[in-house]
Amino acid sequence: MPAQPGISLGELAVRFGCTLKGDPDLRVSRVATLENADGASVTFLANPRYRRYLGRTKAGVVVLDPALADACPVSALLAKNPYATYARIATLLHPAPLVMPGRHATAVIEESAQIDATAAVGPHVVIGARAKIGARSVIGPGCVVLDDASIGDDTRLTANVTICQGVVLGDRCVLHPGVVIGADGFGLAPDQGEWLKVPQMGAVRIGNDVEIGASTTIDRGAIEDTVIGDGVKLDNQIQIGHNARIGEHTVIAGSAGISGSAVIGRRCMIGGQVGIAGHLTICDDVVITGQSLVSSSIRKPGYYSSALPVDESTRFRKNAARFRGLDEFVREVRKQRSTGGASQDGAHPDDNGPATDEE
Amino acid sequence: MPAQPGISLGELAVRFGCTLKGDPDLRVSRVATLENADGASVTFLANPRYRRYLGRTKAGVVVLDPALADACPVSALLAKNPYATYARIATLLHPAPLVMPGRHATAVIEESAQIDATAAVGPHVVIGARAKIGARSVIGPGCVVLDDASIGDDTRLTANVTICQGVVLGDRCVLHPGVVIGADGFGLAPDQGEWLKVPQMGAVRIGNDVEIGASTTIDRGAIEDTVIGDGVKLDNQIQIGHNARIGEHTVIAGSAGISGSAVIGRRCMIGGQVGIAGHLTICDDVVITGQSLVSSSIRKPGYYSSALPVDESTRFRKNAARFRGLDEFVREVRKQRSTGGASQDGAHPDDNGPATDEE
Amino acid sequence: MPAQPGISLGELAVRFGCTLKGDPDLRVSRVATLENADGASVTFLANPRYRRYLGRTKAGVVVLDPALADACPVSALLAKNPYATYARIATLLHPAPLVMPGRHATAVIEESAQIDATAAVGPHVVIGARAKIGARSVIGPGCVVLDDASIGDDTRLTANVTICQGVVLGDRCVLHPGVVIGADGFGLAPDQGEWLKVPQMGAVRIGNDVEIGASTTIDRGAIEDTVIGDGVKLDNQIQIGHNARIGEHTVIAGSAGISGSAVIGRRCMIGGQVGIAGHLTICDDVVITGQSLVSSSIRKPGYYSSALPVDESTRFRKNAARFRGLDEFVREVRKQRSTGGASQDGAHPDDNGPATDEE
Repeated sequence: MPAQPGISLGELAVRFGCTLKGDPDLRVSRVATLENADGASVTFLANPRYRRYLGRTKAGVVVLDPALADACPVSALLAKNPYATYARIATLLHPAPLVMPGRHATAVIEESAQIDATAAVGPHVVIGARAKIGARSVIGPGCVVLDDASIGDDTRLTANVTICQGVVLGDRCVLHPGVVIGADGFGLAPDQGEWLKVPQMGAVRIGNDVEIGASTTIDRGAIEDTVIGDGVKLDNQIQIGHNARIGEHTVIAGSAGISGSAVIGRRCMIGGQVGIAGHLTICDDVVITGQSLVSSSIRKPGYYSSALPVDESTRFRKNAARFRGLDEFVREVRKQRSTGGASQDGAHPDDNGPATDEE
Repeated sequence: MPAQPGISLGELAVRFGCTLKGDPDLRVSRVATLENADGASVTFLANPRYRRYLGRTKAGVVVLDPALADACPVSALLAKNPYATYARIATLLHPAPLVMPGRHATAVIEESAQIDATAAVGPHVVIGARAKIGARSVIGPGCVVLDDASIGDDTRLTANVTICQGVVLGDRCVLHPGVVIGADGFGLAPDQGEWLKVPQMGAVRIGNDVEIGASTTIDRGAIEDTVIGDGVKLDNQIQIGHNARIGEHTVIAGSAGISGSAVIGRRCMIGGQVGIAGHLTICDDVVITGQSLVSSSIRKPGYYSSALPVDESTRFRKNAARFRGLDEFVREVRKQRSTGGASQDGAHPDDNGPATDEE
Repeated sequence: MPAQPGISLGELAVRFGCTLKGDPDLRVSRVATLENADGASVTFLANPRYRRYLGRTKAGVVVLDPALADACPVSALLAKNPYATYARIATLLHPAPLVMPGRHATAVIEESAQIDATAAVGPHVVIGARAKIGARSVIGPGCVVLDDASIGDDTRLTANVTICQGVVLGDRCVLHPGVVIGADGFGLAPDQGEWLKVPQMGAVRIGNDVEIGASTTIDRGAIEDTVIGDGVKLDNQIQIGHNARIGEHTVIAGSAGISGSAVIGRRCMIGGQVGIAGHLTICDDVVITGQSLVSSSIRKPGYYSSALPVDESTRFRKNAARFRGLDEFVREVRKQRSTGGASQDGAHPDDNGPATDEE
């Protein structure tokens, strides 16, 4: 019998510490969704939204929570954290393509650059003076790494990434196409009706295991460095201003904007299109929902929001018009009541204690 | 008599099915605005905002609605859809520059790539293994097309575009500079206080006649594909997350953000900076006005909004402070009234029926 | 005695017109923050937020306002505009690196392009037919300058910048990586349920002393040009639509979106993530705070806002739900009062005069 493709459920259970409910000799060779899986596929259930597909799945095996074992019509790998277990299995089944070490003939590399012999430098890459590229790192086609930049080991710049002078990147980072690290911060001094450019002389320091999405930009510091902590994950199209500091294992969703000198704690979750003003502090373990505006520091972990959800435009416009007169309306109602209305207690809370405070 | 430049009004009328009011032998050779047109120019009136310029125009001919024919001081081409007719005339007068087929000497092309003989591959382009480029397509300077990507016929990547592995693009598409298609989606599994990367193994499938604006990013799917329908038009700086699906002929304005697994219907119009949350559905023919947040599914065609328009900052801040206490204020007023106030009917609507609903 | 490094405080005072309080022979050679400066460093105090660090600074000299002279524990350079003075000193101490004129061997330059002999064209650059590059300008690695574009003197395209055909850039501009100038505007004519592309035949004209941040995009005009005035400063990830006009010395922060045909005055300050609708006018000297939406013209200088700041999510959601019924609630309260309530004066302001008005 020739070698069978894929991997057996028994081996998956052992390798990833799951309890297997089903046939240990069954083999799977790819991943699929619950809905579209076939018998050679492994799938998973983590988001309760997709629970409805479980009963009809035709997967070879489903990675799921032990509590759902009985509802699974096929083999099951029971895991405390099904999504993480699925991620590990998927990585095993679909390993990153091997990259050949070496320098493409069209790469333009300054003589003083230090490129590890195991690194791969792609076509049309430009690498500046004294730049360093670590072991097994990949500098994909069209990337530009300017003078004195330093890239750690096992880091991958996929394509058309720009790393400006003096930027430091850690190990095992992934930077997607269009990323720009270390462009000048937006430093301007008003001067007689015009704006004077303030030299931006800090760099950007990025820790280990950081992923940076397509077209995200992180500016260099004005004097000291902009700092991105270990394990930070940034989605696409994010803007991070000069001297911002992002704490370890914080994740930021697409199109968010972090202004200069903002300090964000560890393990925060910042939603898409969130705006964070400059020169403020957000403590650890804060969650900001999508499109919110943070204009003052947050000192207490928790969930924060400020974006109204859509309504029918006609009704929304009426409410928005009322909002323009809200302060006057409240004053009017309270004045009525205190002069001739039914209540004289005056005990209305004039303002609610702020969850945030000014710096 | 030498050949005259331009094209006669008579020919324009015949070619585009308009009624001509004026001299069929008059010739026009370029387009211009109503305000600045001269006698050799064709212009149009479609936006009522510019109606005020009509009476003074010096254009050779104006394309406009038959209802405005009498107000036009110069020759008129009467069309049911003046803007579309203008677009066709402009395309005729200003055709796209001819591109020479062939491969620039500096292009780096894997041997297994299949480039149609009529396609044009520009300088410093990189094309990966098994990638396909269709007939008459143009891959502009600095573009990167990674392994197994497939680009249809008559499609144009202007410059510095990145197409990641396995992405499929249809015919007659235009992708502007800085576009990134098929970067990894933002798939992360929480794992003991850190984030584990979830392999992103789907691709992106883009239909025919799709235009994608500068620096827009569309992520590849996690397991299945991200899908952009035929005729979709995307403005600049848009972010589209993994496994989103955009229906045919939907248009999205600049800087909008579409989260992962959002499903958007056909013929929708999504305004600039709109945010759409993940894992929701928007039906066909929905219009979302600029900067709105869609956080739950929309099942009814119509107009939706959620962004307050600017007010003077001082007044806005007072109203925003009142907003923080709005729920308490409403409770307070209703309690007053039900205990000692003028009304006991209790028939106030506590909540308005939502136009949107949770998935 | 060998030449000492740096520059003496006496010389700084003379050169920049400051009053020196301290030792004129003391020398400084670098810049630093108030907090981390040492005796060889010059620092400054401009933002009152950092006033608290002044008393403990170990800087060689602090540039600050004369009113704070007595609070400064070290030498002081007293200046009316400390931040601008600091910017000039920093520029003196950290001059931009010298760039060697010439064309890198890998640059692909059309024969008809006119490159000044003092300009520097980097590796993997592409320059199109009839393009012009002025004196001492730098076209960094990976930049693409398409046909007929014109770049003035002393202008710097750092890396991976795309300048489309016919774009005109002035003198002393700086464009950061990923910038795209002159991609097609988002011009579409609805046509029987589909969208017809409207040719974009204008260009972009950019004045002198303009800085454009990483990944910012400025679209070419539809018929006439998009225009960016002298001294305009644009942060990262900004989108500017076709035919917008930005007045001189206006600054725009990151991720803002300016729709097509918007006209913005001089010396305006537009905050991060602000959205400005199309076909409207904003007068000179307007300040828009972050994440606001401008949907109609502003004719009076001043401060404008519309973004609610974050609150705890639970409370925010309650208030947002009340907002959906705000118009009905106000009507209900007023009706109560006018029929049986304590007040019959009816003199409540039903609407506040708008600060903005429709075009």
